[in-house]
Amino acid sequence: MLFSDITILDEFFEEQKHMYVGVEGKTISYIGSTRPEKDFGEEYDGTGKLLMSAFYNAHAHSPMMLMRGYGENLALSDWLNTRIFPFEDKLYSDAVYYATLLAMAESLRFGIVSTSDMYYFCEDMVRAVADSGAKANISRSITSFTEGSVKNADSYREAVALAENCHGAADGRILVDASIHAEYTNTEQSILDVAEYASLYGLNMHVHISETREEHEECRQRHGGRTPVQLFCDLGAFDTRTTAAHCVWITDEDRQIFAEKNVTVASCPVSNLKLASGIADIPALLEKGINVAIGTDSVASNNSLNFIEEMKFFALLNKVKHYDPTLVTPRQTLKAATRAGAVSQGREDCGLLKEGNRADLIVLDLSVPHMKPVHDLATNLVYSASGSDVLLTMCDGNVLYRDGEFLSIDIEKAVAETENACAKILESLA
Amino acid sequence: MLFSDITILDEFFEEQKHMYVGVEGKTISYIGSTRPEKDFGEEYDGTGKLLMSAFYNAHAHSPMMLMRGYGENLALSDWLNTRIFPFEDKLYSDAVYYATLLAMAESLRFGIVSTSDMYYFCEDMVRAVADSGAKANISRSITSFTEGSVKNADSYREAVALAENCHGAADGRILVDASIHAEYTNTEQSILDVAEYASLYGLNMHVHISETREEHEECRQRHGGRTPVQLFCDLGAFDTRTTAAHCVWITDEDRQIFAEKNVTVASCPVSNLKLASGIADIPALLEKGINVAIGTDSVASNNSLNFIEEMKFFALLNKVKHYDPTLVTPRQTLKAATRAGAVSQGREDCGLLKEGNRADLIVLDLSVPHMKPVHDLATNLVYSASGSDVLLTMCDGNVLYRDGEFLSIDIEKAVAETENACAKILESLA
Repeated sequence: MLFSDITILDEFFEEQKHMYVGVEGKTISYIGSTRPEKDFGEEYDGTGKLLMSAFYNAHAHSPMMLMRGYGENLALSDWLNTRIFPFEDKLYSDAVYYATLLAMAESLRFGIVSTSDMYYFCEDMVRAVADSGAKANISRSITSFTEGSVKNADSYREAVALAENCHGAADGRILVDASIHAEYTNTEQSILDVAEYASLYGLNMHVHISETREEHEECRQRHGGRTPVQLFCDLGAFDTRTTAAHCVWITDEDRQIFAEKNVTVASCPVSNLKLASGIADIPALLEKGINVAIGTDSVASNNSLNFIEEMKFFALLNKVKHYDPTLVTPRQTLKAATRAGAVSQGREDCGLLKEGNRADLIVLDLSVPHMKPVHDLATNLVYSASGSDVLLTMCDGNVLYRDGEFLSIDIEKAVAETENACAKILESLA
Repeated sequence: MLFSDITILDEFFEEQKHMYVGVEGKTISYIGSTRPEKDFGEEYDGTGKLLMSAFYNAHAHSPMMLMRGYGENLALSDWLNTRIFPFEDKLYSDAVYYATLLAMAESLRFGIVSTSDMYYFCEDMVRAVADSGAKANISRSITSFTEGSVKNADSYREAVALAENCHGAADGRILVDASIHAEYTNTEQSILDVAEYASLYGLNMHVHISETREEHEECRQRHGGRTPVQLFCDLGAFDTRTTAAHCVWITDEDRQIFAEKNVTVASCPVSNLKLASGIADIPALLEKGINVAIGTDSVASNNSLNFIEEMKFFALLNKVKHYDPTLVTPRQTLKAATRAGAVSQGREDCGLLKEGNRADLIVLDLSVPHMKPVHDLATNLVYSASGSDVLLTMCDGNVLYRDGEFLSIDIEKAVAETENACAKILESLA
């Protein structure tokens, strides 16, 4: 495909007008201000449109699509114990498959091509992502509340099978990550075991860290003053490439460890507001050179996968946290939503509109009234754009969403089957 | 028009499916679960759609559309002194007209039918709103930095002319409000003068109050410990129906005064984040029974008029401010975005989907993936919907926006003329 006479946001997030971008196979193979001589097949008229890197969602639980809007206005423990856990107890394979497929549809509609997705029923998730044409780093998250090795638990066996069967599946679109769910849901032994599994299979690690103040403080009490970050580091959890979600309550020492161990922080600003967890200190992370990406968390605590909206929350919250309107710029935000997420997933050739990189691209409508006038395009993208301005989403060179149509997903079936699964589970809970 | 077989959000913000709603002239004249016998003209197929009250924007400065994205990542004083004030110094009549027209287009696209709009060049704003078919409460905001009466100032004379010429114009769609810009931009005498003007012409009052901590504290120093709210109340500023924007730093005593004087608070959550002002305490206001509405403020500090997005910020911020996820429910939020705004504008027959009320209505697309599944529709509307889900906006029974088309505004001209005005002003500043 040749995107012709289109505005682009280049690898430095600067606007360049009247550009030509050629995609060949999975790759961006031409970017220039003149029409290429080569034939790239279909020509896409870029008038009034923007081409930029697609988004990478660095923390999510896609199957929780089933629980969007289920269990609202509740304290965290009530939310988990009276709504989420009983509902999750009734999940089944097809429910997870279709819920994940619907999550992929919503992701593509909002410009997300790849998701770091932690849950269970992972082989159903793999199937859904593979069928959707999108990418995901999928992890079977491990919890363990009893002493001793976790290696005999079903969850660990599932994680091993997942690594063996699915890592690199769907032509590399599916990667398998290791996942220690969190400090408060694991023992020191199970943390050691999962870290060992990650090293053994060469997997990235994906964890929840210091999401709530209670989690952070109770860890210190349980573990001789060590924070979750310090404990995880001591137990080798960061010895492969790691993404740590939330990190609302981490300390300066924790940030130092992240910098040294190249840990990515996946900040989930909307979910952290909705569950009343707090506001992660993004400027303190950026100052240390830490890779900061953005996650939606699940739609049960968001309740959408609207990544443009998520960027706005990400960019705005720290201004009030520190009473300083100069903090977290649009370009820092765009980088977090694109390149930083790709890096966190170990997809080094993704997340930048650059020749030779993967063609994970989105087209946005610049002709809509809410994107006018333009004093600075990056600013308009972060603060003025609407999620629905995404007109086209391409993953590895394949157009998966375009002008309201899902080209890889039977959206009516995905919706109907997800609704059926909800009804079935609610009935079994009644 | 007859909306047929449509889901509605009724006057209690509850979902009702398969309803019929008939509009006659400016009025909602039928709501029922059966098809009415009467002929309402065009039939609108409501399958997969939601009909609800349109939104009322309780605080804005529409002509600042010209400055969207101009002057970013700056401290407030730099923002005002190096960017906003010099730019505003170059404004002219046509620039304000087209910028306001573009703001009306964006408003209608995002479901806002009526805007409380404080600025200057007000007769140009009136023209634009009248031409757009939308509604507005327009006020010439008064500032005075010298002692003595403000009655001889041009600003006051303009305010008087505005009240005499435009209050009730465009068949009542235009109302004129009085406006004391703020405590820190006025003297006690000018506050008295504008309060007197409001009473004389029977106008609502629209003010900025305690937006920043500095403003609040410096007022106390200047005025013997009195807060802006206490000072304004003492000087009679609340003696007609008043809307107070921001109110981030007000005290319990201030809230007591608001409750007694029936003052509406127009909370501007996004702008208050973007300018690093703070988070208004919404639960404390609601507890006292105060009418709480939502404002976008200008797009220079937002930078959009996406009211669905604004609702999400409104609903989420206080959960973290108080570390309590139960605060500010979707229904409280929907009321703030609709009925509370209409009431603040003195439009008593607006803001509720109810027989006999004005037909200020919006249709939203419920068939999109991000609105599925539905456990609770009000929750999905506040947390999951995208601004662009608005398919149709009707004001006083007239369809002004539908499926991407603006029926009352030449959108290409509004955009082009706004861009021309920006270029002209920037050139004169260079």
